[in-house]
Amino acid sequence: MTLAVIAGSANEPLAASISAELGVKLHERLAQRFDDGELHVEIEESIRGCDVYVIQPTSLPVDEHVMELLFLADACRRAGAARLTAVVPYFGYARQDRRASGREPVGARVIADLIEAAGFTRVVAVDLHAPEIEGFFHMPVEHLSAAALLARAIRTTRDMVIVAPDLGAVKLAERYQAFLQLPVVVLHKSRLSGSAVALRTIIGDVKDRAPLIVDDMITTGATIEAAVTGLLDAGCKPDVSVLATHALFVGPAIARLQALSIRQLIATNSVNATAVPVPFQVVNLAPMLADAIARLHRDQSLGSLLAHA
Amino acid sequence: MTLAVIAGSANEPLAASISAELGVKLHERLAQRFDDGELHVEIEESIRGCDVYVIQPTSLPVDEHVMELLFLADACRRAGAARLTAVVPYFGYARQDRRASGREPVGARVIADLIEAAGFTRVVAVDLHAPEIEGFFHMPVEHLSAAALLARAIRTTRDMVIVAPDLGAVKLAERYQAFLQLPVVVLHKSRLSGSAVALRTIIGDVKDRAPLIVDDMITTGATIEAAVTGLLDAGCKPDVSVLATHALFVGPAIARLQALSIRQLIATNSVNATAVPVPFQVVNLAPMLADAIARLHRDQSLGSLLAHA
Amino acid sequence: MTLAVIAGSANEPLAASISAELGVKLHERLAQRFDDGELHVEIEESIRGCDVYVIQPTSLPVDEHVMELLFLADACRRAGAARLTAVVPYFGYARQDRRASGREPVGARVIADLIEAAGFTRVVAVDLHAPEIEGFFHMPVEHLSAAALLARAIRTTRDMVIVAPDLGAVKLAERYQAFLQLPVVVLHKSRLSGSAVALRTIIGDVKDRAPLIVDDMITTGATIEAAVTGLLDAGCKPDVSVLATHALFVGPAIARLQALSIRQLIATNSVNATAVPVPFQVVNLAPMLADAIARLHRDQSLGSLLAHA
Amino acid sequence: MTLAVIAGSANEPLAASISAELGVKLHERLAQRFDDGELHVEIEESIRGCDVYVIQPTSLPVDEHVMELLFLADACRRAGAARLTAVVPYFGYARQDRRASGREPVGARVIADLIEAAGFTRVVAVDLHAPEIEGFFHMPVEHLSAAALLARAIRTTRDMVIVAPDLGAVKLAERYQAFLQLPVVVLHKSRLSGSAVALRTIIGDVKDRAPLIVDDMITTGATIEAAVTGLLDAGCKPDVSVLATHALFVGPAIARLQALSIRQLIATNSVNATAVPVPFQVVNLAPMLADAIARLHRDQSLGSLLAHA
Amino acid sequence: MTLAVIAGSANEPLAASISAELGVKLHERLAQRFDDGELHVEIEESIRGCDVYVIQPTSLPVDEHVMELLFLADACRRAGAARLTAVVPYFGYARQDRRASGREPVGARVIADLIEAAGFTRVVAVDLHAPEIEGFFHMPVEHLSAAALLARAIRTTRDMVIVAPDLGAVKLAERYQAFLQLPVVVLHKSRLSGSAVALRTIIGDVKDRAPLIVDDMITTGATIEAAVTGLLDAGCKPDVSVLATHALFVGPAIARLQALSIRQLIATNSVNATAVPVPFQVVNLAPMLADAIARLHRDQSLGSLLAHA
Amino acid sequence: MTLAVIAGSANEPLAASISAELGVKLHERLAQRFDDGELHVEIEESIRGCDVYVIQPTSLPVDEHVMELLFLADACRRAGAARLTAVVPYFGYARQDRRASGREPVGARVIADLIEAAGFTRVVAVDLHAPEIEGFFHMPVEHLSAAALLARAIRTTRDMVIVAPDLGAVKLAERYQAFLQLPVVVLHKSRLSGSAVALRTIIGDVKDRAPLIVDDMITTGATIEAAVTGLLDAGCKPDVSVLATHALFVGPAIARLQALSIRQLIATNSVNATAVPVPFQVVNLAPMLADAIARLHRDQSLGSLLAHA
Repeated sequence: MTLAVIAGSANEPLAASISAELGVKLHERLAQRFDDGELHVEIEESIRGCDVYVIQPTSLPVDEHVMELLFLADACRRAGAARLTAVVPYFGYARQDRRASGREPVGARVIADLIEAAGFTRVVAVDLHAPEIEGFFHMPVEHLSAAALLARAIRTTRDMVIVAPDLGAVKLAERYQAFLQLPVVVLHKSRLSGSAVALRTIIGDVKDRAPLIVDDMITTGATIEAAVTGLLDAGCKPDVSVLATHALFVGPAIARLQALSIRQLIATNSVNATAVPVPFQVVNLAPMLADAIARLHRDQSLGSLLAHA
Repeated sequence: MTLAVIAGSANEPLAASISAELGVKLHERLAQRFDDGELHVEIEESIRGCDVYVIQPTSLPVDEHVMELLFLADACRRAGAARLTAVVPYFGYARQDRRASGREPVGARVIADLIEAAGFTRVVAVDLHAPEIEGFFHMPVEHLSAAALLARAIRTTRDMVIVAPDLGAVKLAERYQAFLQLPVVVLHKSRLSGSAVALRTIIGDVKDRAPLIVDDMITTGATIEAAVTGLLDAGCKPDVSVLATHALFVGPAIARLQALSIRQLIATNSVNATAVPVPFQVVNLAPMLADAIARLHRDQSLGSLLAHA
Repeated sequence: MTLAVIAGSANEPLAASISAELGVKLHERLAQRFDDGELHVEIEESIRGCDVYVIQPTSLPVDEHVMELLFLADACRRAGAARLTAVVPYFGYARQDRRASGREPVGARVIADLIEAAGFTRVVAVDLHAPEIEGFFHMPVEHLSAAALLARAIRTTRDMVIVAPDLGAVKLAERYQAFLQLPVVVLHKSRLSGSAVALRTIIGDVKDRAPLIVDDMITTGATIEAAVTGLLDAGCKPDVSVLATHALFVGPAIARLQALSIRQLIATNSVNATAVPVPFQVVNLAPMLADAIARLHRDQSLGSLLAHA
Repeated sequence: MTLAVIAGSANEPLAASISAELGVKLHERLAQRFDDGELHVEIEESIRGCDVYVIQPTSLPVDEHVMELLFLADACRRAGAARLTAVVPYFGYARQDRRASGREPVGARVIADLIEAAGFTRVVAVDLHAPEIEGFFHMPVEHLSAAALLARAIRTTRDMVIVAPDLGAVKLAERYQAFLQLPVVVLHKSRLSGSAVALRTIIGDVKDRAPLIVDDMITTGATIEAAVTGLLDAGCKPDVSVLATHALFVGPAIARLQALSIRQLIATNSVNATAVPVPFQVVNLAPMLADAIARLHRDQSLGSLLAHA
Repeated sequence: MTLAVIAGSANEPLAASISAELGVKLHERLAQRFDDGELHVEIEESIRGCDVYVIQPTSLPVDEHVMELLFLADACRRAGAARLTAVVPYFGYARQDRRASGREPVGARVIADLIEAAGFTRVVAVDLHAPEIEGFFHMPVEHLSAAALLARAIRTTRDMVIVAPDLGAVKLAERYQAFLQLPVVVLHKSRLSGSAVALRTIIGDVKDRAPLIVDDMITTGATIEAAVTGLLDAGCKPDVSVLATHALFVGPAIARLQALSIRQLIATNSVNATAVPVPFQVVNLAPMLADAIARLHRDQSLGSLLAHA
Repeated sequence: MTLAVIAGSANEPLAASISAELGVKLHERLAQRFDDGELHVEIEESIRGCDVYVIQPTSLPVDEHVMELLFLADACRRAGAARLTAVVPYFGYARQDRRASGREPVGARVIADLIEAAGFTRVVAVDLHAPEIEGFFHMPVEHLSAAALLARAIRTTRDMVIVAPDLGAVKLAERYQAFLQLPVVVLHKSRLSGSAVALRTIIGDVKDRAPLIVDDMITTGATIEAAVTGLLDAGCKPDVSVLATHALFVGPAIARLQALSIRQLIATNSVNATAVPVPFQVVNLAPMLADAIARLHRDQSLGSLLAHA
């Protein structure tokens, strides 16, 4: 079974980097839009009998990237792919993992159903917003984590403290703690003291410490902004670092981040981000994803690449 | 079983018109995009046990409109809709009804699979580009035609001739002939005489006749433009009329159409077209779609509304 | 469509109470084990064309209760039930909502698949351990909450403080706060201060306050025991109350709880608990479940019964 | 994975020829009818782990041939076939590709569903009556064309003209034009000039030219007969040739064809035709089908064998 | 929900009789074969929202009758039938209920899968050859028995003895015994005494008794012939009666039965048998089937109509 | 594709014996119960890309063993098993192969559906109680028989007679006759002579012969006890032997069997029986199952291992 790697258009640089790591040429493929906005995709080399990996984060514009992923699946399936894996470094719609009211969709489950309907038989994802999304798929989901990579990239100092900017990030903060051996503090936006107004409480001590805020993704930067404000109010050093897997940077994100005195801002290239100013540092996911693809292709255990490892 | 009509955001004026025809209020629904481009939909009134019709042409931007259709389906299904019908006045991706090369998707089948996966149990469509698309669905497709409505809207003269701008439109031209009792001519772009160059041949006589070009949809206007040029060269009167079900008007369409001396340009509001200059005349599909919905809701035969009637 | 309520054997008193609330007789059914341990079920009255609700928490012995639920579904489906709803007040295997290692099952998804394969078309659940489990089902899940009922049952005092015994319970604690208007504190077992040993930190002030520990379920009582120890160490009043939806009370649970100086211990009858000594107080879920069944049967909105309401 | 070729009973000579081309022995299989008309099939050699190709056109008696195809699939699937391809050189029920009234089946989709239900995972077909039928299958359909073979077999003269006997055959006529470099004319049965009576119009010039009528299939010969009459009336040479992929020859077909002065009548052996008199010439599909099977078996591209190539 | 009864072409007299019993007119439907043997069906009156019952035994020619059943299902489903029940008084291929060799199909399961794929949601059958076939369907199978009807039709005498012509008929014989209060004897073709030759042993005493042979179906009459020979050899009275549900009468059946001195030969009209000579007496299944349809339509219990009642 | 054998906990000695026969180490796996009775399984070595065989009879406690089988399937499927076969030497719930009343489940079909839903793609079973259960599965069932092994293990004498203890065992008795060349007699509990009371009739002669009772399984021993009583009454020698595939020995089985004067009692180790006293002799199924697994793994025919061979 020959290995074939196909790049969707959502993150071609990442796909190119993965193919370079693997030492295989990306399969030629066409992906264009007609005047009426309809997508046309075509695989331009034979993939009959191949073990195919389609690389496509479902980042903005999310619906177009999802549809392209599905069309590529149908093209590969009908063209005789033997195994068909969706490599989705950033999985969009992940926050719609339950109904918050009685008459909403469970958006992440809809996307999972579409990916299964299109013919994929395995998914590779990185730092899913909610790990339960694995259970939205009937097929195997290989849930990888970039935490080890990001932890390796950060320059730590003795006075640093890891900050979970909300309760949802506590597990991730503890994962980083295992790598970095630093204390963890938690921000919690709640009415902990019973008052009518929601306050952002800091659990733990940040005084004279340099905060290292960790999260799974940065979208508009609002969470980071609020965290920095709260931390400074609490007497932290004005020397803030930020670690996140997914740098979506939508809307006012870049302006916001530039306005904050951030020393280090480290994220992966899961999303094809446009150039952002210093001090943004990009950790390349390609070696990890290439390693995962190589192991899957050779039927080897993914071991320590998995998010729950 | 109560009737509930829900408007997707692709064509709210049409949905409003349908609901007015039916004498029922549109169900309140929310459809918004977050900063990261992700769609959020919510039905704001109970639809438990209802017979629900979601009105959404899958026009430009097609992927966003498809996804919204699927999310609305999931929301309705989980909220207890008893029957769930997709009313898709314009069905996008219809031209991808087969593979033109060995490694393409069958796009229209992918869309059909998604609509079934999301939970719809019936589709209503109007003048599908390829009627075989009915067979891409396992569920029932009620395929309606706007030809009778459009034929009624045109002002005919004795010197008119119906023009099929290519072979694919001949069946449609003959359908209009049955309503209008006018001769039909056919344009055919081919190497009929064996020459190396493709010519546009006119089958039938247009000399001193006023052409009435009929087609299922107008996208960029290129087909209309080429037809008019050919017809004028063949000596037709410079008094051109155009009938089409779907007025997509993408790219240079409006500029092209305005440059041609078109007397009447009649199409339906299947797609939520922005205002276009005279002489564009819009035939309202709402009465026909409301009639179809009312009959389906009351379990009555669709009879003459069907495309094959 | 006639309403039919069938009791599985996992919690017959609750089913009886629901049927009394609804004013309908429980359908006669047989559920027995042969000598070889095989289950035999039989519905002893016609349910053809009925709207059937099977009441069965999947509590200990969980596999037997799951299988009985599936057999009842098959019996009802083959006997012509028109609608078939699983009412699962306690949903077992909910903690297996993701893989913690690469070669485990996603247990809760397996159970969801079985329930769908057996023929149910809707599930009613109460206070699911992970709300994302809704997305493990393709069919609608009506996720109810007992928090309002439990909040109404507790006798509060001014010096009380709501305690989330771990981070997973914070959302629940905030839900109770909305009902009770009391401050919330959080216990967190972690290495927050970077030390090698895990400590149970208390976020918020409990000194001279009477703790009200809230959780979704009590199994062995270990979490409650650890919380009480920690709270007393932190100077709380020795006047502890406990609120939980599901009282499984397995292994040493009752002995542990009796050893603690608990003033009030309130839980629902989602699980068919054997008699436990004072001060255990049982809140009857039957009125809420009967209300939900009645609304579903009459196609009415569930409104405020939903967990996310 | 070993290659195994199994002949259904619909066209054993073709299957024998394919197996000879491939250099593999046909797998022994039993296919018999009991007294009560029920079919019994059995594969008489192991196919466990094999790449199996079942050769069966669904020609007259079509329902029996379809059922045998399905039974062979079930037998192969249960006996452990690793891959299971239906080779259907002639695909019956292809004209039922849409509903012509509101209460018909979509026959071709029913057949597609049955073939998928029985366990095939790929279909090979030749010159489908409607290429959209590919989209009726979820699984890959390899749609081959015999046009190149037939074009090679015809003896052409300079005075020949390719004739599409109706609009549905125009695309096919243009495909032959690409091979033969001859002009194309089109017969069109319609009221092109608006008269009440349907006339068969000839688009293009046939005077003193030798017609070469091309079509996908010949059933009763009525279309050929009408075309020849019309062509002679229009002054063509009485030297008629006919090319078609599928020679069903039902009812009066042979009598009709013999009554016409046909110089060359060329078709493939897709259907197991009984002997017909001169000048019927059969083009053997076996080399092309054997080539397709060999490429599929070795996971190679089908390239120019495809109908859309 | 309106009741609609549609007759397949396999047994139109039975369908007419059922419709008369029900007091409803048979729905007009077209079922014809084209010259190429392809079936065309069409429902000629609206069935939208109806509770539809299609009456079609799958008797000889079995494949054509199965296919017609499937096409009628697709037509009804796409035309909006609300419920769709296959009434199959005789279920063909029932003897292929397991593999007798490793490379056969399980024919009855294939047929069950086709019926489910075509869109039926319930099956009504009469005296299935193997009652386990119920389990081949995921949907409900209402398995009726004609034994009570047949028992009522026979004229019994005091000297009669019920004969099971082989071991497979013993359960049926005991069912008749419950109605007729006569002794049962069993014929068994086996090497019971260890000899090399298979003998037909009679278990029980038939001397000077009038045999009443009972079986589920008569196909070629060979079993009856062998039983009569054996019984006469054993000294029974030459006054033989035969009861069977399904009278297929294929091949030499009628000649064989006429050659035997049979006093009474009673069977149902499950199969549309051609006229056979005295003393064949037909018991009309229509009242029972009409009763079953009426009960199913009104959502009433089938009670004593069921085979296992 | 590497072979991997995984033992469920239902019969670890058998699995160990199979792995020894195959010369492969059992894959490490964890299967434990939490305090709340929930099962946790984990495969402790990589099975990615392996051909996996899970060995688990569904014996008492049947629901727990079924659930463990399903959880192991999900774990293997998600961990990347390439092929996944359930080896179920004893298949529980097999007697629920049809509905005996209108409102029961078809239990064996429910179990089949669960096994398919969990992700197995093939089943290996031994001496199924009803061979039609093969048809309850859509996937292939390899139905093996232990009869040849058991026949080889029995010490026969010239005066022996094979006894089918009821009609359901006659086919099995004849299978043993083919191996042992002994006469067969049949016990039949029925009102053969029309009396009101059910008698156990013996078909054939047992006087002064040593009975060899054969059956597919022994559960409570009641059938054996009744048979022995009847045989002794009929004058057989008091020298009774018993052959059965599955020795469940539930309830009073062992006491009953010990009370009877049984010379030889031979069964397989399909079920993990606790030690039973002399003269119980266990025939090891491991060589046959290992042979089947080896052949399946190497894609070889199962030939004479099959029950219908």
